[in-house]
Amino acid sequence: MQERDLINSIAAKATGDHPSLKKGIGDDCAILKSLAGSDLLVTADMLVENVHFDTRWHPPYLLGRKSLAVNISDIAGMGGTPLFALLSIGIPAKYKGNWTDQFIDGFLSLLGEYNSNLIGGDTVAADELTISVTMIGSASENKAICRENAKPGDAVYVSGNLGSSAAGLYLYQNGKVIFNNISSSEWKNLIKKHLDPTPRIPLGQALLESGYVTAMQDISDGIATDLSHLCKASHVSAIINESELPGDEKLFRLCEINNLNPTDFQIRGGEDYELVFTVQRGCEDKLENFISHRADTPAITRIGTIEKGQGVSMRTRHRDIINIEYQGYEHQS
Amino acid sequence: MQERDLINSIAAKATGDHPSLKKGIGDDCAILKSLAGSDLLVTADMLVENVHFDTRWHPPYLLGRKSLAVNISDIAGMGGTPLFALLSIGIPAKYKGNWTDQFIDGFLSLLGEYNSNLIGGDTVAADELTISVTMIGSASENKAICRENAKPGDAVYVSGNLGSSAAGLYLYQNGKVIFNNISSSEWKNLIKKHLDPTPRIPLGQALLESGYVTAMQDISDGIATDLSHLCKASHVSAIINESELPGDEKLFRLCEINNLNPTDFQIRGGEDYELVFTVQRGCEDKLENFISHRADTPAITRIGTIEKGQGVSMRTRHRDIINIEYQGYEHQS
Repeated sequence: MQERDLINSIAAKATGDHPSLKKGIGDDCAILKSLAGSDLLVTADMLVENVHFDTRWHPPYLLGRKSLAVNISDIAGMGGTPLFALLSIGIPAKYKGNWTDQFIDGFLSLLGEYNSNLIGGDTVAADELTISVTMIGSASENKAICRENAKPGDAVYVSGNLGSSAAGLYLYQNGKVIFNNISSSEWKNLIKKHLDPTPRIPLGQALLESGYVTAMQDISDGIATDLSHLCKASHVSAIINESELPGDEKLFRLCEINNLNPTDFQIRGGEDYELVFTVQRGCEDKLENFISHRADTPAITRIGTIEKGQGVSMRTRHRDIINIEYQGYEHQS
Repeated sequence: MQERDLINSIAAKATGDHPSLKKGIGDDCAILKSLAGSDLLVTADMLVENVHFDTRWHPPYLLGRKSLAVNISDIAGMGGTPLFALLSIGIPAKYKGNWTDQFIDGFLSLLGEYNSNLIGGDTVAADELTISVTMIGSASENKAICRENAKPGDAVYVSGNLGSSAAGLYLYQNGKVIFNNISSSEWKNLIKKHLDPTPRIPLGQALLESGYVTAMQDISDGIATDLSHLCKASHVSAIINESELPGDEKLFRLCEINNLNPTDFQIRGGEDYELVFTVQRGCEDKLENFISHRADTPAITRIGTIEKGQGVSMRTRHRDIINIEYQGYEHQS
């Protein structure tokens, strides 16, 4: 069973509503009615050793940061502000002590960068290293950007570069880099993106404030899969252009040397933790202008258009149209 | 390293405050400023196969209920109302499908009994069955009952019976009962308490409303350990009386047959998910009268007194005073 199927099956069973619940399962975050003028955003992720990470090359401090970053990225995917984290860890004996201390230090270092607090969690003995994080954030009341309001004619944008994280993983899995030469490596941009991604909080907040963004989510499983989620929720289709996909120059260099296809990394590679979002037709210039004046935001790139119908397609450099719906990375479960 | 030490070490590092954060790590729940007139309560627990449960005798439906119950019990421990749950599960291949479906059904059945909603989580492939739950609840603003306000002279009470869950576990571990004879077993009270405990939400709410309770927490690790937490947080000591500890008649019967000491079960046995609380000196009768008119509340029993100093002691049936501080059950980690 695919993870998506099981989640859908759980979501279908988790019916019912509550006056404080504005949005339950089915988006990056759940939305709770909260402080005057604000909604709370709540999200949870679980990471398991050798499924989601490999401690042979992932230093504990950076793994602590990444474990939090993937959750903060879900807050960014709605344009929110991170506030509170809960961390539960199942710890095998060999990771107790120094390894765990560094992990926690890394987790708290990223939390501190967002002026956020750890407010709970659990630590238990386990045979398998397991990291479970819950993140609570906020967004202006009724302003959080969900997945379901993309309309035909909207432009599809992404932030930053695509495929860098998967390329960083490729480097480790194929022995091209070793643990302790990160800062001096010519591939450091790719490695950094894999080991220590930066969630796009300031960009998400700016996109929310702009008022031009109709739908958004973070890119954790690759654009082919994550844009499919967005399109499905909005009952629309999307077409993106291979020639417009943003990529780090080192991704192209790596692929050239090793005879790989960079587009595979860009559309199917997971864990970029960039944002994919749709912009109201005719507002593209205003949006780009709005963002250009904001600090701490990466480049944004228009890569395609929302259309009627369903599915996600890509126009190749050879002008072929190919179906790429849900062809990104998905954890098997 | 004991779990407590690691939690303390994490809590010590998790410094900083936020205008919405009323209480972070260190009690049953974190408290966030929230809806007008209410505080939010947030708690998380992680359960790992063969550390916290055994699927040889724990049916998946009941394990689903218990995984949630242990978290709702933390909400009860502050007098709160459960609202929202997040569930992340690491699932080995052999548990996929029917087992997982029943687990989820059980989880949702208990959630429904509290008119609460599942609002998020994650499901991932894992070698080891791992269950991570976050629960969000609410309590009247500034009214949640914490651990740190017990005063010398206060009476110490517990709800329900002590030691039943540990006795239920003993029955399974020693082959005294088998999986499918639960309802007909003479030990069904003990078994039910172990497999499907009832968190004490209505009692916790009544205790909060009464205004007579100075400190409270749920009993997950045995009264010897959990009362120690409460005393440490309040900078007081406690003395409890062996002869007053409430126990199911079947606990005493089981111990008689097998030549066991029931007091060991009562003070050191974990997972009762009852409440331990302290009542302002002179208000014991008013409190007992208040509770007696409430529906869905178990019996409450006065078992001792808060005193100056530190530590938790027990006056035995032979009038000896013995130190029992932190001698309850603790998961090793």
